[in-house]
Amino acid sequence: MTPMIKQSSIEHFLDELASRKATPGGGSAAAVMGAMAAALLSMVCNLTIGKTKYRDVEQELGAVLARTEQLQKQLTEMIEEDVVSFGAVMAAYAMPRQTQEESVLRAQTIQTALKAATQVPLRCCHVCREIIDLSAVVTQKGNSSVVSDGGVAVLAAHAALRSGALNVMINAKIITDRQFATNQLAELDALLSHASAATEACYQSVRKTIG
Amino acid sequence: MTPMIKQSSIEHFLDELASRKATPGGGSAAAVMGAMAAALLSMVCNLTIGKTKYRDVEQELGAVLARTEQLQKQLTEMIEEDVVSFGAVMAAYAMPRQTQEESVLRAQTIQTALKAATQVPLRCCHVCREIIDLSAVVTQKGNSSVVSDGGVAVLAAHAALRSGALNVMINAKIITDRQFATNQLAELDALLSHASAATEACYQSVRKTIG
Repeated sequence: MTPMIKQSSIEHFLDELASRKATPGGGSAAAVMGAMAAALLSMVCNLTIGKTKYRDVEQELGAVLARTEQLQKQLTEMIEEDVVSFGAVMAAYAMPRQTQEESVLRAQTIQTALKAATQVPLRCCHVCREIIDLSAVVTQKGNSSVVSDGGVAVLAAHAALRSGALNVMINAKIITDRQFATNQLAELDALLSHASAATEACYQSVRKTIG
Repeated sequence: MTPMIKQSSIEHFLDELASRKATPGGGSAAAVMGAMAAALLSMVCNLTIGKTKYRDVEQELGAVLARTEQLQKQLTEMIEEDVVSFGAVMAAYAMPRQTQEESVLRAQTIQTALKAATQVPLRCCHVCREIIDLSAVVTQKGNSSVVSDGGVAVLAAHAALRSGALNVMINAKIITDRQFATNQLAELDALLSHASAATEACYQSVRKTIG
């Protein structure tokens, strides 16, 4: 069994990303960015909870922490899921198409694989959109001496959201079930809408806190 | 000897990021984002070079590849350098200050450490600014079937640049040598200037290529 990507070293993962193999690629990189964003919010929460000065927000940030820990785990799994779903698309394209039956089966398998391959980055986008909103809470209420880490989190989550969006679009384009594709793209538009404005608002508030 | 962060697993690195320890933090996360950006550009170059259809750009993308490979290595080292330089600042703050001499020595050591801690993220910003420009070349001339990976690269590089900027600012603020701080901030402003516009232009061109 191939070892999970999350267990490979950062250096090895980067070399695999750079190689002429198509996976891991941008989808996995987006998941890593999202996971780092969730982890940085957890760090700010961890450095806030238990400090007298921040007693008033302790309960709220405790709830945020429970959520960012979950989201970090989900995004860490997506590093691998993106590779697996892309691998299924590649395998479908490699199916034989010498007979009419083979061609039909291959086309159907490609379409099924493409639909699945669109759902992984779309889930990544959902999670990263949530992280952007959580960043606003953490940077406003968390320990101000590590506010810059919350700022890095919102930037990483936004880059991951827009990266995931590219992967949804590139797959949605070649899905023949147009109703499915249109629904996926509408869901994506809703996630992208206001995300840039929310990210900028959070980033500017972090800069203001830094002084 | 503590193992290098680049040799730790992705999963372990994320858990360390999330922990209540101040390092690794946003500076290391920025370096990882930048390194992934460089690696993704290398991947697109690797999937372009040697293909008949892209023979005209082979030499140009070969030169880009040599550079992105260097930048990936530099950014990978910065994951660790950020932790080391921040550790030096923490160690300086922990110095004794019972006597006048101790207080003076401590204050001087803090300032020296802060200057060094500003230079790591500033170098990260320089490198990421270069990656944004290289992304434009790679997404315009590289293999269009992996153009989305170039799009992820430019987003990651821009997020890393702005993340590094937060770390420069947070340190520059408490540096008493105002001439040094002002110079660092001016250098940073030059790097940030036009970076958003260049990133958006590249992202939109990628979306156009995707269709």
